[in-house]
Amino acid sequence: MNGRNFRTLLEGQWTQQKFLCVGLDSDYERIPDAARVGDVRETIVNFNRAIIDATKDLVCAYKPNSAFYEKYGDEGWKALRETIRYVLDAAPDVPVILDAKRGDIGNTNEGYAISAFDHLHADAITVQPYQGKEALRPFLDRAEKGIFVLCRTSNGGSDEFQNLPVHGKPFYQVVAEHVANDWNSNGNCGLVVGATYPDELRAVRAMAPKLPILIPGVGAQGGDTGAAVVAGKDAHGAGIIVSVSRSLVFASSGDDFAQAARAHAQALHAAIRNAL
Amino acid sequence: MNGRNFRTLLEGQWTQQKFLCVGLDSDYERIPDAARVGDVRETIVNFNRAIIDATKDLVCAYKPNSAFYEKYGDEGWKALRETIRYVLDAAPDVPVILDAKRGDIGNTNEGYAISAFDHLHADAITVQPYQGKEALRPFLDRAEKGIFVLCRTSNGGSDEFQNLPVHGKPFYQVVAEHVANDWNSNGNCGLVVGATYPDELRAVRAMAPKLPILIPGVGAQGGDTGAAVVAGKDAHGAGIIVSVSRSLVFASSGDDFAQAARAHAQALHAAIRNAL
Repeated sequence: MNGRNFRTLLEGQWTQQKFLCVGLDSDYERIPDAARVGDVRETIVNFNRAIIDATKDLVCAYKPNSAFYEKYGDEGWKALRETIRYVLDAAPDVPVILDAKRGDIGNTNEGYAISAFDHLHADAITVQPYQGKEALRPFLDRAEKGIFVLCRTSNGGSDEFQNLPVHGKPFYQVVAEHVANDWNSNGNCGLVVGATYPDELRAVRAMAPKLPILIPGVGAQGGDTGAAVVAGKDAHGAGIIVSVSRSLVFASSGDDFAQAARAHAQALHAAIRNAL
Repeated sequence: MNGRNFRTLLEGQWTQQKFLCVGLDSDYERIPDAARVGDVRETIVNFNRAIIDATKDLVCAYKPNSAFYEKYGDEGWKALRETIRYVLDAAPDVPVILDAKRGDIGNTNEGYAISAFDHLHADAITVQPYQGKEALRPFLDRAEKGIFVLCRTSNGGSDEFQNLPVHGKPFYQVVAEHVANDWNSNGNCGLVVGATYPDELRAVRAMAPKLPILIPGVGAQGGDTGAAVVAGKDAHGAGIIVSVSRSLVFASSGDDFAQAARAHAQALHAAIRNAL
């Protein structure tokens, strides 16, 4: 792991015109019978390995969401660590974003940063903005890691607070400005903006021309891939991480689950390149 | 665990004039030599058992913060589960608040809710407001559990977003209003407001007269206990959970660590009752 740098790895993938991120939301209960071996941990890891093997030449990142692992306690936690370990071994040029949406006071965030980066060996993490920059220092200080701050999330009801007017603009834009103009002194920040809101993605891109934008919400959540790519790309036709989770990893519940995931990844890869 | 109800347990403690919450931020590295036995997991659990035994007649709740456990991966996770299990066995009338500050989209929060409530058996959890009520449904729907929403946090720099003006009032007050007036249909919501801001605590209490307020920040973070109690109490002279973590659990690094923790808890218990 020594010497790994998230931004360098990501730009390496972008140079190869790869912008798709596979969200490893590998809920044990939905894993096809064909991937089931042994216990919960073994099944999750076995399934993830198959998905990674089937997609690793098409993606710019993997993004396991911690909730689907924590759901199974310490065994799930082990599965998460082993999954990240497998990406590092089998696809060492592909960075891993731990989608954990963590956030606490500074003293406590130190524990989360150690967990994500030193124990799990993730290359990047998603974090909550609510407690402000000073609280997030233990993450932001890790210059070699990627720190993706929630800005405009893809879920229904996300406008409840994120679109409240602050100084004449929606709150999520204030978050984008703070991250782009103040938090990014180590050049390691990114933003999370859902694919379900292309107009708002365009507004964030204008405010944060240089930041990577992680764009979840394609697929099961209904975001349109082409519209998201056009709205989110930077001036160099890059800058985006288009993330798809359930609709890809669970593309088929049959024996062909890995091939179906690959076919879905190929279609999205093509759709992204076409839109760019 | 069947039949446990967070609000009922909490009110039972309040009736006994107990308002102190011990934050089990049991960072392995700071655990005194006298509590060290075996491996990381065993040491953390052994230390927590000693702190719980020394304080269980004085507190209204325990609040382990997940970051200090996740820091040690799956072994830390096991220690967290065993710690909560010990409270359920040794102090069955004392509810456990998992301070995890989780938050994601609804489908994903389902995993976090299962982790916190069904796997770890916590009675309550702290959650992030940023994604809105709809996303938090998997937590809010658990009527028997306590859902504490971050409102005004105790950390330095928390005003960066929390004090931004929205409709003529600070953003944290908008969060308080939404939670008190809209999110609490199951009667299971609470708010987190730091002891370091008594004036803002008073403002939140006025907006949310019936909600339990979890008040961290006493002790290492510098909050004044008496001022926080006066500002946060409800019309019945209750309604507060005054949380102290590092300054209590690490009150002594010597062989007397448990007695020192008890002495600190007694002093705070007296200070809270005096202020009420």
